[in-house]
Amino acid sequence: MKNKSTLLAKTALLSLLFVATPSCKKETVKETQTTKTEAVAENPLASWNDGKNKQAIIDYVKDVTTEGSANFIPVADRIATFDNDGTLWSEQPAYFQLLFVMDRIKAMAPEHPDWKNKQPYKAVLDNNMPELMKEGKKGLFELLMTTHAGMPTDVFEKTVKDWMATAKHPTKNKPYNQLVFQPMLELINYLKANQFKVFIVSGGGIEFMRAWAEDTYGIPKDQIIGSTFKEQFENTKGNPTITRLPELEFNDDKEGKPVAINKFIGRKPVIAVGNSDGDLQMLQYAASNPLKNLEVYIHHTDSVREWAYDRKSHIGGFDKGWDEAAQKGWLIIDMKKDWKVIYPGDK
Amino acid sequence: MKNKSTLLAKTALLSLLFVATPSCKKETVKETQTTKTEAVAENPLASWNDGKNKQAIIDYVKDVTTEGSANFIPVADRIATFDNDGTLWSEQPAYFQLLFVMDRIKAMAPEHPDWKNKQPYKAVLDNNMPELMKEGKKGLFELLMTTHAGMPTDVFEKTVKDWMATAKHPTKNKPYNQLVFQPMLELINYLKANQFKVFIVSGGGIEFMRAWAEDTYGIPKDQIIGSTFKEQFENTKGNPTITRLPELEFNDDKEGKPVAINKFIGRKPVIAVGNSDGDLQMLQYAASNPLKNLEVYIHHTDSVREWAYDRKSHIGGFDKGWDEAAQKGWLIIDMKKDWKVIYPGDK
Repeated sequence: MKNKSTLLAKTALLSLLFVATPSCKKETVKETQTTKTEAVAENPLASWNDGKNKQAIIDYVKDVTTEGSANFIPVADRIATFDNDGTLWSEQPAYFQLLFVMDRIKAMAPEHPDWKNKQPYKAVLDNNMPELMKEGKKGLFELLMTTHAGMPTDVFEKTVKDWMATAKHPTKNKPYNQLVFQPMLELINYLKANQFKVFIVSGGGIEFMRAWAEDTYGIPKDQIIGSTFKEQFENTKGNPTITRLPELEFNDDKEGKPVAINKFIGRKPVIAVGNSDGDLQMLQYAASNPLKNLEVYIHHTDSVREWAYDRKSHIGGFDKGWDEAAQKGWLIIDMKKDWKVIYPGDK
Repeated sequence: MKNKSTLLAKTALLSLLFVATPSCKKETVKETQTTKTEAVAENPLASWNDGKNKQAIIDYVKDVTTEGSANFIPVADRIATFDNDGTLWSEQPAYFQLLFVMDRIKAMAPEHPDWKNKQPYKAVLDNNMPELMKEGKKGLFELLMTTHAGMPTDVFEKTVKDWMATAKHPTKNKPYNQLVFQPMLELINYLKANQFKVFIVSGGGIEFMRAWAEDTYGIPKDQIIGSTFKEQFENTKGNPTITRLPELEFNDDKEGKPVAINKFIGRKPVIAVGNSDGDLQMLQYAASNPLKNLEVYIHHTDSVREWAYDRKSHIGGFDKGWDEAAQKGWLIIDMKKDWKVIYPGDK
C-alpha cells in the first residue's frame, strides 16, 4: 500500500494547521476582486514583470505556434499540465483541502455528539494539537475518510461548493478561491488563446478540485486530474448513484503524476508547471518529449505578499526539483521578482 | 477481484474466434474508402434512412441547442458518451482486440521458440481450439498479459498502430478501422458540430483504443476512456518511461462505465449510446440527468451487411438492455432498417 502511506504522510501536514506561524502580514479583505480580464486580452502576461522568465515563456509559445517554425507543434500535441497546490493557488499554512477537512469535522460535529469524547474528533473540536498528533497517521486518515467518503458524489460536490462559498483562509481572511495566483490565471489564458489544451494534475482530490476549479480557472472538469477514491455505482432503487468508498484508489503525486497524465490524457505534455519535488516526475516526463518543451517551477520567495519556503519546507518542499531545474535550465519563477501581483485584485 | 473475473469472462469469448460461423456474406475489398465528408456537411445524417429514429435524434439536438428552448443545455453540459465495440465498429466474430491478441501471439512466436511446446501458446499457434479451451480462463488471461503488458506504453502504442495498418478482418477482409459504422461517424460529427463534447467509454483497453480511435473517429485521446492496466513510471536511466504492468487496474464495463465517466469526465452525460447489456448502466446514468437526455441502443439486425444477434449472443448480448429500452422509450436503432449503409465506402 505504497500509495496509501504516501498520502498518509501528506495528511500529517495537517499538523501545520495548528503550529504554523505564517510570516505574511495579515491582509484586509478586498471589497472587489477582479481577474483583470481586459488587461489580459491586451497584454497576455500583464501581471508578470518584464525579464528573462516572462520573455522565455513568450518566446517558447511564439516559436512552437508559428507555422513554418522548425519547432512548430500541431494543435493536438499542445498539452500543458499544471500542478495546483502552490502552483495555481497558495498552500500555506496547510493544503487548503486539509483545512476543508478540519472545517467539515467541526460542521459535522452537532450530528455526532459522541465525537466530543472520541478521538481523533475530540482533538479537532478542541483545537488540541498535541492530542491530535498523538492520534498519528491513523487518526488523520480517519478524519480524511469521514469527510471525503461514504456519500454520493453529488452530495460531496455540493459540500465542497458550499464550503468554498463561505469559508475563509485563517490568516488571509479571503475565500480560498481568491487565493489563486493572478499571473498564473493569465498564463493559463495565454496558453488557451494559443490553442494549448490546459490540464490540472494535482495531488489533491479530483472531486474536491472539480467542485470549484472549473469556474475559478476556466478549465473543464474533464481536464482536471487528481487523486481518486474508489467509487461504486448502484441503481437498486431506480436512482443511479455513485458512492465514494473509504478507500484511496490513486495518489496523483510524484511518480503518480506521469502515470495519471498517460491515463487521463494519453499524450506527453509539452509544458509542465509545478512548485515542489512532488512535481519533479511530471516535469521530467514533459522534458522527455521529442517536441520542443518548457518546464517551469514556481519558487515561493515572497514572505510579505505570500509565503517564502523551499528546500526544508514540510509543505511544497522544493529541493531535488530545484537542483534538477538549475542543472537543466528549466525556468524558475521567482514570485517576489517576477510577479507584479500575487492574487486577483491586488495592486 | 471482481473486475478481473469479469474481464476473464470476456476473454473467454476468444473461443468464438475459432468456432463462429459468421452469417454474413464474404465481401470483396473495396478499393477506395471514403467517409463521405462532403455529404455529411450538407446532410448531417445522410446515411440514416428517414424515419422516427433519425427524426428523434435531430429533434433532440435542435431542442437542447436552441437558445430560448425550455430544454436548452449549456455547452459545458453537452456531454455525449459512446460505447465502442458493437456501437461504433463491429465486434464479430470476436472483439477485435481479442483478434489482436491472437495475431500478436503468432507474430511474437519466432522470438519464443518454447511456445511451440508450451500452452496456451501452442494452442494458438496450432489453431487448436479444443486444446485452448482446456487451458480455460487462466490460459486466456496469460495470453492477454503476454500481449498487453511488460512493455513501455509507447512500444505498445506502436505495436497496435502497426497491427491496425496491416491486419485484416478474417471474413470481411478489410482493415479493422474500416469496419466502423458510417452512420455513427456522421452522428459523432453532427454532435460535435452542435458543440457536444464526445467521449468514447469502451470496455476495450484504453491504450489499445487510443492508438487508432483518435484518427478514425476524430475524437482526442483524452476523450477516449477504456479499461486500464496498472502502470509504473521509472526514470532510472534518465529516460522517463511508463511501463504497462501485468495487472488489470479497472474494467470499464457495466457498473464500471458510470464510475469511469464520473472519474474521467466529472459530469453526467446527456447522450449515451451503446449496443449491449454492458452499456445499460451507462444509459441509466445518462437517463438520470435532470437535463433533457437521449439514450440510444444500436440493435444488430442486419445478417447480410453486418451480423444479426441480440438476446442470446455471447458477444454484445442485448437482453436486459432491450427490455429496459422498450419500457423507457429509449431509441432502438434497427441497423437493417435505419441505416442506408453500414461501413464507409459502402453503397
